[in-house]
Amino acid sequence: MKFSESLIKTRREKVKEADSINADLLIRGSYIDQLASGVYTYLPLGLKTIEKISSVIRDEINKIQGQEILMPVLQPKENWQKTGRWETEDNLYKFTSYYSKTDLVLGPTHEEVVVPLAKKFIFSYKDLPKYLYQIQNKFRDEKRAKGGLLRGREFIMKDLYSFHSSKEDLDDYYEKASNAYKNIFNKVGIGSKTYKTFASGGSFSKYSHEFQTESDSGEDLIYLCKKCKVAVNKEIINEQSTCPECGNPKLTEIKAIEVGNIFKLMSKFSAPFGLTYRDRLGEDKPILMGCYGIGLGRLMGAIVEVSHDKDGLIWPIEIAPFKVHLINMGDNREVLTETKRLYEKLMKKKIEVIWDDRSESNGVKLTDADLIGIPIRLIISNKTLESKAIELKERARDNSEMIQYDNILTRIKEIVDVK
Amino acid sequence: MKFSESLIKTRREKVKEADSINADLLIRGSYIDQLASGVYTYLPLGLKTIEKISSVIRDEINKIQGQEILMPVLQPKENWQKTGRWETEDNLYKFTSYYSKTDLVLGPTHEEVVVPLAKKFIFSYKDLPKYLYQIQNKFRDEKRAKGGLLRGREFIMKDLYSFHSSKEDLDDYYEKASNAYKNIFNKVGIGSKTYKTFASGGSFSKYSHEFQTESDSGEDLIYLCKKCKVAVNKEIINEQSTCPECGNPKLTEIKAIEVGNIFKLMSKFSAPFGLTYRDRLGEDKPILMGCYGIGLGRLMGAIVEVSHDKDGLIWPIEIAPFKVHLINMGDNREVLTETKRLYEKLMKKKIEVIWDDRSESNGVKLTDADLIGIPIRLIISNKTLESKAIELKERARDNSEMIQYDNILTRIKEIVDVK
Repeated sequence: MKFSESLIKTRREKVKEADSINADLLIRGSYIDQLASGVYTYLPLGLKTIEKISSVIRDEINKIQGQEILMPVLQPKENWQKTGRWETEDNLYKFTSYYSKTDLVLGPTHEEVVVPLAKKFIFSYKDLPKYLYQIQNKFRDEKRAKGGLLRGREFIMKDLYSFHSSKEDLDDYYEKASNAYKNIFNKVGIGSKTYKTFASGGSFSKYSHEFQTESDSGEDLIYLCKKCKVAVNKEIINEQSTCPECGNPKLTEIKAIEVGNIFKLMSKFSAPFGLTYRDRLGEDKPILMGCYGIGLGRLMGAIVEVSHDKDGLIWPIEIAPFKVHLINMGDNREVLTETKRLYEKLMKKKIEVIWDDRSESNGVKLTDADLIGIPIRLIISNKTLESKAIELKERARDNSEMIQYDNILTRIKEIVDVK
Repeated sequence: MKFSESLIKTRREKVKEADSINADLLIRGSYIDQLASGVYTYLPLGLKTIEKISSVIRDEINKIQGQEILMPVLQPKENWQKTGRWETEDNLYKFTSYYSKTDLVLGPTHEEVVVPLAKKFIFSYKDLPKYLYQIQNKFRDEKRAKGGLLRGREFIMKDLYSFHSSKEDLDDYYEKASNAYKNIFNKVGIGSKTYKTFASGGSFSKYSHEFQTESDSGEDLIYLCKKCKVAVNKEIINEQSTCPECGNPKLTEIKAIEVGNIFKLMSKFSAPFGLTYRDRLGEDKPILMGCYGIGLGRLMGAIVEVSHDKDGLIWPIEIAPFKVHLINMGDNREVLTETKRLYEKLMKKKIEVIWDDRSESNGVKLTDADLIGIPIRLIISNKTLESKAIELKERARDNSEMIQYDNILTRIKEIVDVK
C-alpha cells in the first residue's frame, strides 16, 4: 500500500469528540471514524487490525472444535419472552416493523437464537458435544457510550456457545476454552497484563470468569494475587477475599478492562426452549451449555490503552495492519529507486508494507509513522545509501540499527517470528 | 471435516416454510436456517459458501483499487434528512433509542454514511479518485420477504462507492467496475446466464446497469438481445425498445434475478453534504460519485436457482463449501483404512474435503451427497479396493470414473483448475 493512495489523513491535535486514549489515537491515526456516540466506522487500517484479531481468535476457537456460523442481528420478541429477558434485560434496542407489525430486538447476545437453532440439530447423545460460534455485530442501547471502542452501542463480538450431555463434559470444555482465551490474549500482545478473574457464577455455578487487562483506563476494579496471576472481581470480593487458587490473603486492587468472559450457563437457556437430548437408554435429558465471549473492538481498544506512548500507537506485531512502514527521506532519484526496489521486494515476499511515498518533510513522515504505530520502520536516505544500508527502527524500541541490503529480509523475519 | 462432527442434518421432505427452490434446498442441505420471515442464519456449510463468494468479490474489487472499510448498521436520522430520504425511502427500519432518544435507521445502503466520511478524507484533487467498499449486513423492512435468500429483511451486501473529480474519470471507472462484475459472475459460475442490463439512470445519467441472471424464479422481466448478450429492463423497454449496442429490434423477454447493479450517482449525494474538492486552480468543485452493489446472499440464492437438479444442489467449484465429498461404502476395516488414508492425504494437500464417516446406508450417504451438492464425489468400497482404485463422480455429470490411487490428486486438480 502506498500512503499517497491510502485513506490516511492523520491529525496532530487531540480529537474533540474522543473520550479516551484509544478513541483519540485511533481517530487521529485514521483507524476509525465516529459516526455517532458509540458508533464507529472501521477505516482500512482499523479493519485490517480487526481482521488480524479475528484471525487469531478464529484459529484458537477452531482448535477447540468451534464451528463458525453467522446468526442474524434481527431477533423476534417471542424468543426473548421465552427466556424472560424481553422485560428484564436493560439496553435492548426494541422496535416494531412498520409493515409486518412484528416486534424485534437487535441482538446484544445470541442465546435466544442459538438455542432454538440447536434444537433443530441436536437430538441424541450422538449429536453431542457441539460448539457453535460467530464473529458478528451486536447492539446495546447504552445510557452513555464511553471509552471509545471499550463501550460502544454497536460492536463486533466473537460469541461461542457449547452444548454438553454432562457437567463433566462442560467442565472439561470450559477449561479448554479458558486456555484458548489465554492463547488469544498472549498472541494479541496483552497476555502478561491480562488476568483470569473469578466472577459470580449466577444461580447455577459457583464462579464464572472474566479476563481482565490491567489499565488505568479500565472501568472495573479487580483484586489480583500477584503470585498466581489470577484475580477476583469487585462483585465477589466480599465473599471471596483470598486468592481462590492459593488462598493468599494479600490481593492488590487494580483497574482493569474486561476483554473476555466465560460462563457456565448450565440449563438456564436450554430449559426455556426445551432443548434436551436422548441418552443411551432412550431417556430425555437436559442439555448443559457454556458461553464464551470476546469483544473484538473492545479488545482492539484495550490493546491501544496498554500499548501506546505520547507519540502514538504501538501495535503488537501479530495484529498490526502492516508489519513494515517504509519511508524515503527526500526524493532524489537514487533514494526513490532504492526505496521502490525495497518496496517491491517486500511485496514479493508477502511482507505487509506501507510506503510513505508522499512529498512531505521528513519530520511529518516520522511523526505520522510514530502515530500510526507500525512495528518495524525502514528508512532509506542519502545517508543510508552511502553505506549501502537501511535504517531499521522498531516502534517499541528507542534505538535504530543499520542493516545491509542483503540482510534486511532476514532481520525482519527475526523480528516477526520472535514476537 | 467429518460428517459425524458437522452441523449437518439433511431433510428428505420439502421444507414447509420455504417459499422458493433456494430456500428449500439450502434449508434441507443444512446451509441456512430460517429464524423469521426473510431472516436467516448461515450454518457452517452456508457460511463457507458465503465466504467463498466474498473472496471472489474482494479479489476483483481490490483489483480495481477498492479499499475495504466497515461502516455501522446504526445510522442517525439527521443524515437521512439531509438527503431527503428519511421521508421518501420505503422499507426503512426506523426507531428511537430508549436512552438517548435519538432516532435511528438500520442501514439499507450507505450513501448517508460514506459521503460524510469522505468529506473528512477528501479535500483536494490530489485525494481523488477514491474507491471505498464494504461487505456488511443491510436491512429492509420488506412488506413481504420472499424467494428465500433472494429478498430478505436482513442480508449481506458488497457496496462500493467511487469518488471522482470529473465525469470522464467516473465513466472510466464505471467501465472497470462493469468488467469486474463480469469477472465475478463468471467466477461464481453464472457468467453465461448473467446479462448486463440497461436500466434507468435517474435524473442525472441516461442509463444505469443491472446484472440480471436468467431464471424462471426471477421476479424481473428483461428483454435480451441474443446477439450482444445485453438486455434492457422493464422500466425502460418503452423508451429503449431495441438493443442499445447493435440496434437489434428483436429482443426476447425472459425472467431474471437481479444479482448486481452499478449506478452513476453524479452529485446526487455529494451535493447535500457539500462534498467538494479543490482543483489545481484552487477552486471548489463538486465530487462525482458512482455506486456498485452486489447482494451476497441473493447471489448465493440465484446460483442455487440456476444450478440444481431434482436431487439437490450443484455448486460451481469456485464457491463450493468443500471441493470433495468422500464416502466410505460399508465399514469393514480395509475400506475404513483406505478411506482414512485418502482423507488425510487430501487434508495434507489442503484440498477441502468432507468425509461422510457415518454408519449410514450407502443409499442415505449418496442421497445426502446429491442434496449437498459438493462438486467431486469420491467413493471407496470393497469393489474399488479390488481394483486399487477410487470411484470419482462429478456432481454435475452423470458418469463416474475409476481412478488409480496414484492419480487421484492429479485428476482432482484437473477438475478444480479447469473450472
